Amino acid sequence: MLGPPARAYVQDAAEGRGVSGRLDAVVLPESADAVAEVVAWCYAHGVAIVPRGGGSGLAGGAVPLDGGVVLGLERLRRLREFEPLLWRMSVEAGMPTAEVKRRAREGGLLFPPDPGAGEQSQIGGNVATNAGGPHAYKYGPTGAWVTGLEVVLPPGDLVRVGGPFRRDAAGYDLKSLLVGSEGTLGVITAVWLRLIPAPEAAFPVAAVYPSTRTGCEAVLAVIGNGVRASVLECLDRGAIRLAANGLPVAAGDDGAFMVIAEADGSASEARATRAELLEILGVGALATGAPTDPDEVAGLWRWRSGVSLAVRARRGAKISEDIIVPVERLAEAVEETVAIGDRHGLEACSWGHAGDGNLHATFLVAPDDPGDLARAELAVAEVFGLAARLGGSISGEHGIGWVKRGQLGRVWPPAALAFHERVKLACDPRGLMNPGKKLA
Amino acid sequence: MLGPPARAYVQDAAEGRGVSGRLDAVVLPESADAVAEVVAWCYAHGVAIVPRGGGSGLAGGAVPLDGGVVLGLERLRRLREFEPLLWRMSVEAGMPTAEVKRRAREGGLLFPPDPGAGEQSQIGGNVATNAGGPHAYKYGPTGAWVTGLEVVLPPGDLVRVGGPFRRDAAGYDLKSLLVGSEGTLGVITAVWLRLIPAPEAAFPVAAVYPSTRTGCEAVLAVIGNGVRASVLECLDRGAIRLAANGLPVAAGDDGAFMVIAEADGSASEARATRAELLEILGVGALATGAPTDPDEVAGLWRWRSGVSLAVRARRGAKISEDIIVPVERLAEAVEETVAIGDRHGLEACSWGHAGDGNLHATFLVAPDDPGDLARAELAVAEVFGLAARLGGSISGEHGIGWVKRGQLGRVWPPAALAFHERVKLACDPRGLMNPGKKLA
Repeated sequence: MLGPPARAYVQDAAEGRGVSGRLDAVVLPESADAVAEVVAWCYAHGVAIVPRGGGSGLAGGAVPLDGGVVLGLERLRRLREFEPLLWRMSVEAGMPTAEVKRRAREGGLLFPPDPGAGEQSQIGGNVATNAGGPHAYKYGPTGAWVTGLEVVLPPGDLVRVGGPFRRDAAGYDLKSLLVGSEGTLGVITAVWLRLIPAPEAAFPVAAVYPSTRTGCEAVLAVIGNGVRASVLECLDRGAIRLAANGLPVAAGDDGAFMVIAEADGSASEARATRAELLEILGVGALATGAPTDPDEVAGLWRWRSGVSLAVRARRGAKISEDIIVPVERLAEAVEETVAIGDRHGLEACSWGHAGDGNLHATFLVAPDDPGDLARAELAVAEVFGLAARLGGSISGEHGIGWVKRGQLGRVWPPAALAFHERVKLACDPRGLMNPGKKLA
Repeated sequence: MLGPPARAYVQDAAEGRGVSGRLDAVVLPESADAVAEVVAWCYAHGVAIVPRGGGSGLAGGAVPLDGGVVLGLERLRRLREFEPLLWRMSVEAGMPTAEVKRRAREGGLLFPPDPGAGEQSQIGGNVATNAGGPHAYKYGPTGAWVTGLEVVLPPGDLVRVGGPFRRDAAGYDLKSLLVGSEGTLGVITAVWLRLIPAPEAAFPVAAVYPSTRTGCEAVLAVIGNGVRASVLECLDRGAIRLAANGLPVAAGDDGAFMVIAEADGSASEARATRAELLEILGVGALATGAPTDPDEVAGLWRWRSGVSLAVRARRGAKISEDIIVPVERLAEAVEETVAIGDRHGLEACSWGHAGDGNLHATFLVAPDDPGDLARAELAVAEVFGLAARLGGSISGEHGIGWVKRGQLGRVWPPAALAFHERVKLACDPRGLMNPGKKLA
């Protein structure tokens, strides 16, 4: 029997997805060399290695499926280098992402990625999943900010690719191959990050619309007018209802779609962009809101961060998938998600990073109702098919992990799947790195 | 004997580097399917495939070393999709990069990468080498703008990875693995590009300094003051002398280092950043220049584009390598390049993308003097060692091609080299894709 501490290492945030874990040991190394020793020992002895960051992943990627060693990075959390005048930082994998952001801010800089669970998730896990978030719309996902990795590769070699320089055209881009590889190719022990000067100001603009169509037209109008918003989020009718407490703009009974944009830059630039956003998002809107008071702005983003929990509270659990579609297909994806839920007798809603076409298609379930869970799995399978039909991908930011195993074939042709498998086999010939995850 | 047309396909822009080509056939397919047929035939018959874009590469990457089929992409140059209101474009590999940029501009958009030889080079080749250029400082290299690839993989499969959506967290990032792979893993036939609204204005600021040290301090001051310049270039004393015709700011006899920055954005933002740059770059400068007249601005960039040719004209040829170093080591890299030249009896100079620490370390040679060429090869080998000693990489933008074969070991540990080789073997088990190139 595992005691409570070890029990924490057999699950992640893939709630209700039937990811059952079993582990043989938890190892919490305090140095990169120790990580290399653990990997070398496991690789020599045929023992599975399951790297683990903060455990906030939604795809079961950190869950040991069938024994082996869970390799937690939480004690590797040192700041190795911070050069604010050179816009860069090197940190160990276990540093919480929120701390990376705080330290950058203390130096007048911005580390733009802002996935949910910033306090819980760790930078190494964010890199290993190429985590996104609202600001990825303007600034790109985590990988766009990584200039180098220190990583333990099978059978236990500690290597560095890239470093404190901003470009590299030498070997293959193994850094990018490792970014988003979900611990299936190696264990990231430290990262070099580039940063940018923090924008002087950032103002949100929210608007609510009478229909999904008008709301999505507003999203397209922001883009089509050439406005470089830093954030372009959306919530559908169901999400608005479930997260009604603290809405940044009163939705009323007719409110069916909400858009939240942000204008950032120098103070004057942010003000100018805010005015543009208000004008464009105002077309067809039932109401708009654009706080400038710092407390109100912070409140808006706190509310936005809480949407997922508010939705989940409705029935105790939710099954959610983060498809991505070409942005002009967003309205279809939103409407189809609800229709899929209807077909399976499940309340459904969606929200997400509208500008990127990245939607969290969500089905509400009772955690103790096996029928609900089974219906929800059928529903998300249809959601993956929807993403494929609309010309998108089955994941914009959460990754494949365990819950999307075998789904890549919906969007990739067989030859690309074979390429995927060959790369995995080349890097991890014994198949011991996070087995069962990120399978094509 | 090859006639003149075929002769053009046995060389690229790696002048004077002893890259001797021999080919069996040139194939110029007009469709992606035809590319797949060519690759399939070659792969089945054990014939080498050398993909070729515009032939402007500086590393010998497009030169067939020992026979096989040169697969030119120049007839695949269709615009497949341009959605200016959605900030994206899909084009075939053979479209000249300058045409990509022109078409984007016609839609009010910017495709930021601006490697040299934009009229000659093709977008597929730029992607295959992850080409950079001055604006990569703010906007990243070519790969940062690629959201999807259509590519023929061995043994002849036409596949697509990514597409007209802005993020993808599903399978391994095979797109990024192919970007910069220099035709050694597959043949890129089309790309999906994201674009951004064209900045309203862009103003250059040039300054000349009495020493490398003061000039490099000015570069660091721009960064340290948190100014987001769009370009941050440099030229050393030798480059200034050789490109003296048309200098954007009079260097005088004491001019030893030149910095050229650019401020872009909305008109007001660009003006404000220009004023900041003028103030910061003015410290320690002998002179500054900051044209705003469009003709003068265009003239400055035309002059900058001509630096490489002006340097080459001195003795008829040059041997140049594009190392990258942490930006605070730039002054050492500049000074050491001249010292290395002195030791080998060669006139040396350097210029490049200062903000990225990306330096074109250059040795002047007479093209018909074997002694010069031999000394220059010894000199560039020392330059690679210099890059390693300063904690950088052996290439910031030109790639490995043939001329940097075997040099990756200077900056990568053996386990990373083995990883590199395993990836190559997994993707191209018969070793027929651009053989002899990008070798670790």
